[in-house]
Amino acid sequence: MSRDCLTMDKLVSHCKTVGFVYPGSDIYGGLANTWDYGPLGVELKNNVKRSWWKRFVQESTATFGVDAAILMNSRVWDASGHTASFNDPKLDCKSCKTRYRADTLIEEHSKGAVNPDTMTYEEMGAYIAEHHVNCPRCGNHNWTAIRQFNMMFSTSRGVTEEGQDLIYLRPETAQGEFVNFLNVQRTTRAKVPFGIAQIGKSFRNEITPGNFIFRTIEFEQMEHQWFCHADDGARFYEEYKSKAWQYLIDLGFDESELRFKDHEKLAHYAAAACDINYHFPIGWSELNGIHNRTDYDLTRHQEYSGKSMAYLDPVTNTRFVPSVIEYSIGCDRLLLAVLCAAYDEEKLVDDKGREDTRVVMHFHPFLAPYKVAILPLQKKEQGSKAREVFATLSKHFMCTFDDTGSIGKRYRRQDQIGTPFCLTVDFDTLEDDTVTLRDRDSMEQIRLPLSEVVDYVQSRIQFN
Amino acid sequence: MSRDCLTMDKLVSHCKTVGFVYPGSDIYGGLANTWDYGPLGVELKNNVKRSWWKRFVQESTATFGVDAAILMNSRVWDASGHTASFNDPKLDCKSCKTRYRADTLIEEHSKGAVNPDTMTYEEMGAYIAEHHVNCPRCGNHNWTAIRQFNMMFSTSRGVTEEGQDLIYLRPETAQGEFVNFLNVQRTTRAKVPFGIAQIGKSFRNEITPGNFIFRTIEFEQMEHQWFCHADDGARFYEEYKSKAWQYLIDLGFDESELRFKDHEKLAHYAAAACDINYHFPIGWSELNGIHNRTDYDLTRHQEYSGKSMAYLDPVTNTRFVPSVIEYSIGCDRLLLAVLCAAYDEEKLVDDKGREDTRVVMHFHPFLAPYKVAILPLQKKEQGSKAREVFATLSKHFMCTFDDTGSIGKRYRRQDQIGTPFCLTVDFDTLEDDTVTLRDRDSMEQIRLPLSEVVDYVQSRIQFN
Repeated sequence: MSRDCLTMDKLVSHCKTVGFVYPGSDIYGGLANTWDYGPLGVELKNNVKRSWWKRFVQESTATFGVDAAILMNSRVWDASGHTASFNDPKLDCKSCKTRYRADTLIEEHSKGAVNPDTMTYEEMGAYIAEHHVNCPRCGNHNWTAIRQFNMMFSTSRGVTEEGQDLIYLRPETAQGEFVNFLNVQRTTRAKVPFGIAQIGKSFRNEITPGNFIFRTIEFEQMEHQWFCHADDGARFYEEYKSKAWQYLIDLGFDESELRFKDHEKLAHYAAAACDINYHFPIGWSELNGIHNRTDYDLTRHQEYSGKSMAYLDPVTNTRFVPSVIEYSIGCDRLLLAVLCAAYDEEKLVDDKGREDTRVVMHFHPFLAPYKVAILPLQKKEQGSKAREVFATLSKHFMCTFDDTGSIGKRYRRQDQIGTPFCLTVDFDTLEDDTVTLRDRDSMEQIRLPLSEVVDYVQSRIQFN
Repeated sequence: MSRDCLTMDKLVSHCKTVGFVYPGSDIYGGLANTWDYGPLGVELKNNVKRSWWKRFVQESTATFGVDAAILMNSRVWDASGHTASFNDPKLDCKSCKTRYRADTLIEEHSKGAVNPDTMTYEEMGAYIAEHHVNCPRCGNHNWTAIRQFNMMFSTSRGVTEEGQDLIYLRPETAQGEFVNFLNVQRTTRAKVPFGIAQIGKSFRNEITPGNFIFRTIEFEQMEHQWFCHADDGARFYEEYKSKAWQYLIDLGFDESELRFKDHEKLAHYAAAACDINYHFPIGWSELNGIHNRTDYDLTRHQEYSGKSMAYLDPVTNTRFVPSVIEYSIGCDRLLLAVLCAAYDEEKLVDDKGREDTRVVMHFHPFLAPYKVAILPLQKKEQGSKAREVFATLSKHFMCTFDDTGSIGKRYRRQDQIGTPFCLTVDFDTLEDDTVTLRDRDSMEQIRLPLSEVVDYVQSRIQFN
């Protein structure tokens, strides 16, 4: 598949046109960095989540799911360090009042040659002054000092007269797994090592423009925390690196479009950290991260909650606070990568030698929003039979129904939304209960008895 | 099934003990009215959502899903009326500083005899004074006046220097369907009547105690908006009443535990509104609502956004703003009802005449967290074969693995979490690849070749 044809603008436009993703609050001019998933997007996203949950929870005897509340006791964020240090270095242009992130300004000004992640606020300020980095909007060089901007959205409970109790929208799902470590261990009687996984929304007050759904102020994370003895941390870190990689390969990503990137600067508590980057149209960017967080998280929660997080190993009879190997992947970001990897424009030549372009989304069939499009050849003659077929097949998987336009046109509509199979109900179907099934990728057609369609399709849409 | 044995306290305790639901932020003493779903709860909740989506989206050619952002442009809430009037009548005890809802105080004081929904703030104040309703906490009668308390959680974007832009956490998902009416219609080329459905989180700054997951400050809604011509509103209202009812019956609810309740006081724009109430251990309470909202919602958005919401009917060639039949059900509340309906304590007498009690969750198999528990009779002898069986079956559905304790004890563990099938791997399995499958409800056992287990279980766990 060639991705040379794809720009981010083209993808955004395609997604709006066919119904994957719309701008959030669209009729009101939007709300910056929010997006709504349309009829196709919600199915694609649910399938992405299912593929991940199947691989990391369902097929494991040692990983358990949770679904923790977004609103948590504020002490959680004191313990995690977010209250004190989940900050972006912000500065404002005094001329036009636009707000920026200092690190982003430097990165863009240096075209990626300078890595601001390793700089202090003073060093960033010095760089901006020395290199005369001007306001991208008004062109002036009239900056405030660089200040901390906490990226957590806050709100208040407001249940007592005196105080509005300040709470936060969680900036990451991971703490939901950490604070439930004891509950999950107790109720499942799991033995360390074991995992806790969660899929859920997180919120960050991002200043930076988002690049479509790459960076949004609300986003869904898929996080997996593996609790183990510190001595096993390095081994499990490698194991989750390869599991994370294999998951992407099995979803159909090309190896050449993925690469590991070790973190240049480790958090003070981390023993190891890397990302898997994907070759997005905006360049190589983070898709997921794998971190050896040592016993930092559970130790902090032990300290702040006063509850012992020690685990008594029944074999060695020793007590220890488990280490954590974190594997975290952005659901929306993965969905964006899936869209990018699937998009293709194929040059075709028809029987009469005419050239044409076919836009097709080559999704893994498990991810495709609809598995089968049901197309009566003629609305009048086969419409009611086709609706019967829809009623039968839709008990098993998502189908769509289309009875307008030529069959060729309808095939193209399904190609551009990635439906793996088009099922045509024609004259013969009424006679002998057979149908034509056309394959999205090869465009080849087979003839099948209706009674075999469910099994055939099921066998082709698995994710294993 | 008898539900006489069930109190809310018993259910909460059972849920914590086995891992359905834990208090939110548990190790920090919680956060009032938040709850975290544990390993069983997250599966049960996902299955509840899947059953609803299958019924109302997957099996329909005319309903389309969306997944809109929680954070929306504030104009949405001006248009919907939430900014101005999504208020609770709050009052504070001046003695002990506790905040209450006036309507709840009156309802509880009159033991349900008085319906505060039909009262003005003045009438509520007069009732509290006349009937000497005292503070339930400190016993004093020392109230502030009744004031409006907007139940939307607010936060700020904070992307410009001057202003922190005020935004809200959505208090309902419905607006995500309304603002996307044009987008969905355009991209799906749907003809009115058609539906838009959504499952997602909403947030309300509730003062009232929650009764476990019945009322929480963040909760998940499943909402279905059916767009139709005003002339068809009454007919579709009746249709969605019966669809909503049938869905509950098909999930296994007993008719005697459900009832319709028409709203006593209609919103000024509504043509008809009713709830389906369920017989919770706390009494008959709302499970879902069906409303004929007329063209109010789209008309308001047309007015506030300046975008025409008129639909041109291709058959009659007339333009009109569609009416909306709303069917809305709380996912957590339905899950609570499912837990209540499933819970049972059965008196058993064993071979030796000893009495015993079996706690069993009679979930619809589609909803059960795990479909099959895989139990090696002896850990050493059949453990590795049992793990092979787990690897095979878990490709198809959620399974659990348990190799500790007697088989009888393990059966009971599965009964109390509602696993429909226990599969025992025993001596014979190693010889002839057959296994024992024990049914949760009848406790009967059958012997099956391993190769037939997937199909057998699949046939028993469908929701149709």
